[in-house]
Amino acid sequence: MVSAGYLHKIIAEVLTAYGALEGDAHVQARNLVEGDLRGQHSHGIQRLGVLVGRIRNGVLTPRAAPRQEWQTGAVLRVDGDRGFGPVVAFSAVQAIIDRAETTGVALAAIGNANHLGILAPYVEKMAAAGMVGIALTTSEALVHAWGGAAAMVGTNPIAIAAPTGPGSEPVVLDMSTGSVSMGKILSYAQRGEPIPLGWAVGPSGEPTTDAGLAARAGAISPFGGAKGYALGITVGAVVAAVTGTALGRDIRGTLDETSHCNKGDLLICISPHVLGSSHLLPAIGTYLNQVRASAVGADPVTVPGDRARACRQHRLRNGIPLHPNVWTTALRIHEQGRNHRNDRSR
Amino acid sequence: MVSAGYLHKIIAEVLTAYGALEGDAHVQARNLVEGDLRGQHSHGIQRLGVLVGRIRNGVLTPRAAPRQEWQTGAVLRVDGDRGFGPVVAFSAVQAIIDRAETTGVALAAIGNANHLGILAPYVEKMAAAGMVGIALTTSEALVHAWGGAAAMVGTNPIAIAAPTGPGSEPVVLDMSTGSVSMGKILSYAQRGEPIPLGWAVGPSGEPTTDAGLAARAGAISPFGGAKGYALGITVGAVVAAVTGTALGRDIRGTLDETSHCNKGDLLICISPHVLGSSHLLPAIGTYLNQVRASAVGADPVTVPGDRARACRQHRLRNGIPLHPNVWTTALRIHEQGRNHRNDRSR
Repeated sequence: MVSAGYLHKIIAEVLTAYGALEGDAHVQARNLVEGDLRGQHSHGIQRLGVLVGRIRNGVLTPRAAPRQEWQTGAVLRVDGDRGFGPVVAFSAVQAIIDRAETTGVALAAIGNANHLGILAPYVEKMAAAGMVGIALTTSEALVHAWGGAAAMVGTNPIAIAAPTGPGSEPVVLDMSTGSVSMGKILSYAQRGEPIPLGWAVGPSGEPTTDAGLAARAGAISPFGGAKGYALGITVGAVVAAVTGTALGRDIRGTLDETSHCNKGDLLICISPHVLGSSHLLPAIGTYLNQVRASAVGADPVTVPGDRARACRQHRLRNGIPLHPNVWTTALRIHEQGRNHRNDRSR
Repeated sequence: MVSAGYLHKIIAEVLTAYGALEGDAHVQARNLVEGDLRGQHSHGIQRLGVLVGRIRNGVLTPRAAPRQEWQTGAVLRVDGDRGFGPVVAFSAVQAIIDRAETTGVALAAIGNANHLGILAPYVEKMAAAGMVGIALTTSEALVHAWGGAAAMVGTNPIAIAAPTGPGSEPVVLDMSTGSVSMGKILSYAQRGEPIPLGWAVGPSGEPTTDAGLAARAGAISPFGGAKGYALGITVGAVVAAVTGTALGRDIRGTLDETSHCNKGDLLICISPHVLGSSHLLPAIGTYLNQVRASAVGADPVTVPGDRARACRQHRLRNGIPLHPNVWTTALRIHEQGRNHRNDRSR
């Protein structure tokens, strides 16, 4: 068990050692720690090595100067200047929140930023400001088309939050349109365990339980069959159309350490207050409680955000369980970062 | 087989007989015919009886005066005045297209309008204008929560279209977040056929093949398991938050003939042109062709919009196959409409 605070400190020290400004290092660290706090370990400290590798290879600029340009009163275009994804995106989120307070809707179209990490915190920030928040982003092609075998579609995740009135927790959806993450398939492969049928296909498109084959030569299956596939590819097309970024097999740079990150991110902020609907938000909270009360079996019915919130609270109190290899690797990166800093300061 | 033109004529004559303006009757008729042309018969002429019943019961105003009010430069609030859903919504679509040409993004929050019918045509209209279009709407609670049994969530459909450059077909997603429509379950029940496991649950939450039980005392299952449920309930919350309309079990009036229709509709229009991305749209078309070419089995790989477009083209040429009962009922409604008109003109 590692405390969230200690995890944060390790990450931030590494990033500043490699040239990040203190404040930016904290923003990026917070995003990785949020991944681990919510059990999304593939978006947690596990990614620290890739971040450092990308800085060393010049495809992540630790002291980037992202440019925000309002194309109209409601549309912000952001060139991330190859900076940290969370630094670029949280700054954009703040800008569109501020703007939506008067325009009612505002969006940010982001290109040239690194991986955003888990998306929930961006839309949660909008919900905390009383706004509906939507975040869509593209990613490397890992998912096959429905009826296909080759990985053609990103795991193109969707995050959406809606406020439910003062003092009440928002609805927070944060889901990949793949049935599972590649990180999870890889961890099954490392343990030599079979994956459930339906998670992935082999090279001929046949459903497979062979985690190694799926990771090496197959593709992740979309969640929810034909509909989930349709949703995922459409999200990709929307992000590309609005941000003018790459698509499908052309996307690079969220998993590797050497390529320019050419995916796009679309953030949308809508103000129920400007629309005159904010007094009705508590009714949404009441409805969600009715849904929570509709369980019939032993398992509780949750609404989007409940599980992540419970996991996060538990781990804030009790610490975060990390795979020993992940933690050992993080400590080694931290040690290397210290040496790197000392070399630079000599 | 019935031709689309004849279907349209029948519907429009019925609606004008019950007081609709000529132009409005054509807009509503076109939407129903589009449902039948694309094989979504539950949103086709089958709904004509409900529309007439709603007019006769005073919960659909055939000569409504919808009010459009711009709350800000980019946000349109629409009170549908209990009018025809397609009449209210197409007018709003045109308004936000026009607006997004300068603002880059515009949205319409609609309340107090009747059922919109199939959603694809609204987002297709935006895509035809070079825009990304999004349409979200709520509906009666027919879907159970993941882990629940009671119908708590609407089938809350999602439609999204993205343009792919001049002369190229757009991506058009139009899907319910339920695994199947109630109309389909009812038609299995009428034929006494079992439904596939996974479509619905019985009153205790157990998956059932009994179509009658599912329709009478059960609930539709969300598509895609826990993720599809999460998406559906979130869409509902977003629409309610933005439009200030009802949610879940409080929603009435898209299926019955007696209740005020209190669901909401959210339309969003985004201009790639204003964002400076429109020259890259053809690359999306190229990508979609690569995806189409990734089939491995006998079945083709399609992208969202392909199937509906093919079905539509085939039926425009060859006519629309309608269930005999549906057609007989439509002709009876038509006859009643003629008598109603004659009674009124005496």
